[in-house]
Amino acid sequence: MSATLAADEALDRRRRAGEQVLPMAGGEIGLPVLPELRRRLAAAADANAYGPVPGSQALRASAAGYWERRGLATDPGLVVAGPGSKPLLFALLLAVGGDVVVPVPSWVSYAAQARLVGARPVPVPIAAGQGGVPDPERLRAAVTAARAAGRDPRCVVVTLPDNPTGTVASPGTVRRLAALARELDLVIVSDEIYCDLVYDTSVPAESPARHAPERTVVTTGLTKNLAVGGWRTGVARLPDSGIGRALHGRLVSVASQIWSSPPAPVQAAAAYAFGEPPEVTERVAASRRLHEIVVRAVAGRLTAAGARVAPVRATCYLYPDFGPLRDHLARAHGVHGGEDLVRFLGERHGVGVLPAGAFGELGDPLRIRVATSRLYGEDDERRTAALTAPDPLELPWIRRYLEQFDTALADLTGARVPRA
Amino acid sequence: MSATLAADEALDRRRRAGEQVLPMAGGEIGLPVLPELRRRLAAAADANAYGPVPGSQALRASAAGYWERRGLATDPGLVVAGPGSKPLLFALLLAVGGDVVVPVPSWVSYAAQARLVGARPVPVPIAAGQGGVPDPERLRAAVTAARAAGRDPRCVVVTLPDNPTGTVASPGTVRRLAALARELDLVIVSDEIYCDLVYDTSVPAESPARHAPERTVVTTGLTKNLAVGGWRTGVARLPDSGIGRALHGRLVSVASQIWSSPPAPVQAAAAYAFGEPPEVTERVAASRRLHEIVVRAVAGRLTAAGARVAPVRATCYLYPDFGPLRDHLARAHGVHGGEDLVRFLGERHGVGVLPAGAFGELGDPLRIRVATSRLYGEDDERRTAALTAPDPLELPWIRRYLEQFDTALADLTGARVPRA
Repeated sequence: MSATLAADEALDRRRRAGEQVLPMAGGEIGLPVLPELRRRLAAAADANAYGPVPGSQALRASAAGYWERRGLATDPGLVVAGPGSKPLLFALLLAVGGDVVVPVPSWVSYAAQARLVGARPVPVPIAAGQGGVPDPERLRAAVTAARAAGRDPRCVVVTLPDNPTGTVASPGTVRRLAALARELDLVIVSDEIYCDLVYDTSVPAESPARHAPERTVVTTGLTKNLAVGGWRTGVARLPDSGIGRALHGRLVSVASQIWSSPPAPVQAAAAYAFGEPPEVTERVAASRRLHEIVVRAVAGRLTAAGARVAPVRATCYLYPDFGPLRDHLARAHGVHGGEDLVRFLGERHGVGVLPAGAFGELGDPLRIRVATSRLYGEDDERRTAALTAPDPLELPWIRRYLEQFDTALADLTGARVPRA
Repeated sequence: MSATLAADEALDRRRRAGEQVLPMAGGEIGLPVLPELRRRLAAAADANAYGPVPGSQALRASAAGYWERRGLATDPGLVVAGPGSKPLLFALLLAVGGDVVVPVPSWVSYAAQARLVGARPVPVPIAAGQGGVPDPERLRAAVTAARAAGRDPRCVVVTLPDNPTGTVASPGTVRRLAALARELDLVIVSDEIYCDLVYDTSVPAESPARHAPERTVVTTGLTKNLAVGGWRTGVARLPDSGIGRALHGRLVSVASQIWSSPPAPVQAAAAYAFGEPPEVTERVAASRRLHEIVVRAVAGRLTAAGARVAPVRATCYLYPDFGPLRDHLARAHGVHGGEDLVRFLGERHGVGVLPAGAFGELGDPLRIRVATSRLYGEDDERRTAALTAPDPLELPWIRRYLEQFDTALADLTGARVPRA
């Protein structure tokens, strides 16, 4: 079971039972649907034909334009849409075949998906601050060793920007990764679903598609930038190369057997969104600003409490390391690892987070992933207010959430609860 | 690539190029969305949360009621919704594991899905007129032989009513299948997506869930009875037993890694539809009547032309056998098998059909599958007229389609084109 979805559901049950819970486990974006996007979906409610397996021509052309505006010329004929980028990633693993190199830590589903298709993940740690990209220094050794052991790694998954660390690997790291992938003949699957959530828009995440264009598949969706996870829509951009065209054929074939086509009414709305008219761009900008303000507020609290947190540059995730507090946590609470942290915060304080182990880390390190995207309010009215508030941190419901977080942190670390 | 989807797309390209094509390959239901269903989807356009992996409580309760009204008491906690019954079938194969017994002929995707997950289909022919259910007389031998050869068949897929034959296996056949599945310890996956399209509603298809309730998973969706294939929604009913509960856990876990949850706005509309208010029941009845009238008209023409056709009792499919015309077809056209038939009808007459080989038949028999569900018109106005016409066969566009079919058949068989 996907750890994020399971944790979200457990917390929802507690909330329904009347508890005040602080949902920081799953990365669902708690923001309303942009009204124009909602209208587009409603207007397409009569769309009941399957349409082409890789999605409508309108959607593929629109997604191609989206990538072109980000410096990646794209043939709409090499775009494949699916019911979420998660199914696309799964189908890509099937289409590429063989084993899969995954960064550690990385999103819960890459390794799980690899196992489902009978592949084995080849875990490679990231370098500090370079979340989402296997450390190039270690990648070659890991792949060489795996091949020597009779395994068949054929692709490497990267996340740019990164979940769970909220960091963005540097262009240098991405360049080295791309060069190594070419040397080792690996397909790169670059999950760029957070690409519009880099706070400083003048320094976007570097895509490996710039450096190894012949072998990089880019995936994205509208789940994170426009908060429509429940609509299930994602797109993949396949390389314009021999590798890419062969992979495209296999991907469409797999898609035709697993899901037929993406939901037709959603495709219409997605085609509009990827076209990025001004209201979409403005909404994404407002969301990005809100994420940054809230995630930085939480990061500040974690740092003040003594945890180590890499400087967050994107997304709505933090990946604090409580190692510096190891002795205190063991002595005061019997907390020795990420699993203990999750239990302590969840059971004593209704704060839902995920242990580092859910992201592929071995040995249950004293780390958790904290997602801040569901602190904006419980209904659309509050969430809309959060999007437009001059200082979202002053909104009473967000303050209450942060106070609950402060109380939990203070109890954990033995500090005094700070006063607002 | 799914043969039906590929054939549909090829035909659509010819149509766009200006040809008059007769789309009888894919089984997409060419009927409009019921207006109230469209309104429900539009009203749920603000639903952007993932919600529970197996679908909303409302949808699961509604689907449970749907099955209860068909004599299958159902725990909503054992219902799993997905983005189509196709992904559900795929995830079920992964959740059950092992190899899969499939009837021959059967829907194009069962065997293909089995291969995708690394399983191997164990093909077992149907008995004459008992489409969708492996002949129980041969099932035991096939499973025993497969196991002796080191393979691991753990489940059998059945289709009730059947695609491609349009027949419905008898209660006796279903009972024997259920008893054998128990004896051989096989899970039964019963694809009942056509269950509302049995023409004589007083003799519904018998579900194996009545006879082997502890091991039968039933799947269905709204694609066929309400023509919303493009919406992507399906439901599975898992057995209320130890087997069923273990399988439920694995299925939800697989679903969480592959697709997260079904599209939320579609779930709202599906919850309404499975509740079967009068306008839904009436629409399904009108569609059923239309399917029956048109499929019987086509069956009559095939029989008159000398093909063998099993009496059609459900769906919108026919599976004519041109064996009786073998000598003539070989001599007059060099047509020796289903592939030749498809080429002849497609290239010379723009008539799209599928060869028997697409349904798992070996040796390219002189059979094709003919789907009649896209003959109702090319736009919603004509399709609505077809649903309500006292005699749909008299509508000019349906007459034109049938005349095109007559011309193709006459050319094929050397008969004279009948005059209307």
